[in-house]
Amino acid sequence: MKAVVLAAGRGERLRSSTPKPLTKLFGVALIDRVMENLKRAGVTEVVVVCSDARVERHVRGRARVVRNTQVDRGGGYSLLLGARALEGECFLLVMSDHVFEHELLNRLIEARPECTTLCTDSELEGKNVEEATKVLVDSGLVVELGKHIERFNALDTGVFFCTPEVLEVAESFSGRFSVTDVMNRLAAEGRLRALDVSGCYWRDIDTQEELRRAEEELLRMLVKPADGYVSRHINRKLSVPLSRMLVKTPLTPNAISAISFFTGVASALCFAAGKPAAGGVLAQLSSVVDGCDGEVARLKGRSSAFGAYFDALLDRYADLLIIAGMIAASPAQNWLAGVLAIAGCYSISYTSAKHELYRIPVSGTGRLMQRDMRLFLIFLGGLLGAVYQTLVLIGVAANAVALHRLYRARGGVKNAGGEAGKAA
Amino acid sequence: MKAVVLAAGRGERLRSSTPKPLTKLFGVALIDRVMENLKRAGVTEVVVVCSDARVERHVRGRARVVRNTQVDRGGGYSLLLGARALEGECFLLVMSDHVFEHELLNRLIEARPECTTLCTDSELEGKNVEEATKVLVDSGLVVELGKHIERFNALDTGVFFCTPEVLEVAESFSGRFSVTDVMNRLAAEGRLRALDVSGCYWRDIDTQEELRRAEEELLRMLVKPADGYVSRHINRKLSVPLSRMLVKTPLTPNAISAISFFTGVASALCFAAGKPAAGGVLAQLSSVVDGCDGEVARLKGRSSAFGAYFDALLDRYADLLIIAGMIAASPAQNWLAGVLAIAGCYSISYTSAKHELYRIPVSGTGRLMQRDMRLFLIFLGGLLGAVYQTLVLIGVAANAVALHRLYRARGGVKNAGGEAGKAA
Repeated sequence: MKAVVLAAGRGERLRSSTPKPLTKLFGVALIDRVMENLKRAGVTEVVVVCSDARVERHVRGRARVVRNTQVDRGGGYSLLLGARALEGECFLLVMSDHVFEHELLNRLIEARPECTTLCTDSELEGKNVEEATKVLVDSGLVVELGKHIERFNALDTGVFFCTPEVLEVAESFSGRFSVTDVMNRLAAEGRLRALDVSGCYWRDIDTQEELRRAEEELLRMLVKPADGYVSRHINRKLSVPLSRMLVKTPLTPNAISAISFFTGVASALCFAAGKPAAGGVLAQLSSVVDGCDGEVARLKGRSSAFGAYFDALLDRYADLLIIAGMIAASPAQNWLAGVLAIAGCYSISYTSAKHELYRIPVSGTGRLMQRDMRLFLIFLGGLLGAVYQTLVLIGVAANAVALHRLYRARGGVKNAGGEAGKAA
Repeated sequence: MKAVVLAAGRGERLRSSTPKPLTKLFGVALIDRVMENLKRAGVTEVVVVCSDARVERHVRGRARVVRNTQVDRGGGYSLLLGARALEGECFLLVMSDHVFEHELLNRLIEARPECTTLCTDSELEGKNVEEATKVLVDSGLVVELGKHIERFNALDTGVFFCTPEVLEVAESFSGRFSVTDVMNRLAAEGRLRALDVSGCYWRDIDTQEELRRAEEELLRMLVKPADGYVSRHINRKLSVPLSRMLVKTPLTPNAISAISFFTGVASALCFAAGKPAAGGVLAQLSSVVDGCDGEVARLKGRSSAFGAYFDALLDRYADLLIIAGMIAASPAQNWLAGVLAIAGCYSISYTSAKHELYRIPVSGTGRLMQRDMRLFLIFLGGLLGAVYQTLVLIGVAANAVALHRLYRARGGVKNAGGEAGKAA
């Protein structure tokens, strides 16, 4: 798949000397967010249409650059230049000043469009409808789009799939014309499909106010439905403000994962050295920091599967070491409860991976002994000096929840892998 | 999705009093294999066209039955009856006497066909080309099909996706006509697509000889590319013949998983009781039997994701208990090596699940410390009385391999889940 990024707009309303595509949101230029999304979606060739030499320098080496020396001819002309560079091919069309989550592109690609398609959002509530390009959709086809149309039932997200028809139509314009003009011509002939991507986050950034709003919205989205009780009510309340600070530093998400891990190691050492209160506090601190790696990655639009994998495996080892420290601190080093607790921790994580693989949702009960809760129990156990009892509690409860998950999965398992995990 | 199963053939060439659809392959009737495949593919309504009352009784309650009282009119007439039952709808069309692996249907459904489509196999080598229905494919369209056509480049697997066009065409025939006749009419008008499903197993069963061949082929397919060294060279050589016997018993795959688990428990108890040789032998026995659950499931065409999940979690607990038994048997119950070994076992399994989730192949080195190898080392360690050393070896090697897997995954991780495993 190939893509055209329109980045020739002047962005006067942002009142900044920086070209709009280079405007930063949580430290990452808008155009870099778009290009990261394209890369993750598997796009192999990107054409950036720009007018500013600074934008050209910024993306050089990562994209083919097409200079638009007639910006006055409008966004439609930029589209024409980009489409000419990919003549005869289908491509994704995105705007460099639109922030959107990666999932939006996924939905478009998974729909395997065969004709020109506009991603539309039919949830108007909470959106800046006034400023948005509005769309009238009927039976999956776009009837009309524009900023000032009277009847509409969706908004234009600025993400398109274009067939070579788009080039053909764009060539037929002269003078000043917009992307909307080109698309309206296709729509008038019944050749523009609409794909509803409601629920995916997107925002058009035209002003400083919208930039600020986008930051707020991204922060709010950090709380996830899969969060456990402790995570939602305690950890996120601490990790989100922390991430807001960390996102301004050069620390990468993987570096934050490592900091969380070493905080866990320090916790283990404290337990082993007979300082359970310090061990407990460090375990809970590690748990809070463990939220920040993913948060910073999402704020920067750079969350990656490898990052999640790296973090997950480090977490498993941190769990292991903390519990080993607790075994060392237990009376007569009674290892059996510790071994059970280790098994419980791993079983919860292992079943989480399996549920994700087979796409079985984890029920409320199934979320009870996730890492946020386990480390919180260790925190409490450390403060109370009840190290051995904590191991017993985790050993019993975590294994019970893991078996409950398995029990609940009967029948609910999709046919993902047949013989999955056989060779593990 | 809906489906029509053609099961009205007489099957004279099988020389058996049992109707062909009820002929058993590894204890499972051919039609039950087909229906299991349809169920796994998400088919919600099945129409079975049959002529024999025994077949009707067999599938009643699981499918809508249409009786073909004019078998002499040929398979095309059965197709007509089935298509009439689903008038105006698209459906999958399968033959009750074709054995095929589930993956074949998956490929057809994932291709999201929009016109009538025949699954073809372009790998002719090793196939019974003489007896097969041959197909000439050109640019994705079927040009012609038949048993006796001169030019061909693929074989008809007997699996179709049908649009309502098929009913229309079938209605136009009179007298005796075959499925091939109907499809040829569509092909002549350029309305029959071909989907190449090469690499998927399928076989048409017409004779006792073909039934026997199918059994042999299914047995050969039990050795998997992901098998570890010990599994391939030792365990499968024992488990395949064992499965060949077990498949004739009423033992379900999950019951076999449980037997393997309790053999592991017995191994743990032997280690804890200071009988390492017996513990080692039982561990290896458990490992061999652990191969049989999946094998029996695959021979019966009934492997399921839940079965794999159930087996995988039981395996984790068996590993845990065996190592706990070994810790109990170690001098001064030195638990640290045991805890490391437990961590190593879980980390290999956990990373296996992650690699499957993110679809990253596990390299040769990454397969070194899979369960077959770990239990084999425990077997050897038990025989040699070197329990503690075995724990150290597994603890070091398994964790090293897990970290190696993580290291190798950099860059190779597909964007499957973004924040996967965060809440584990």
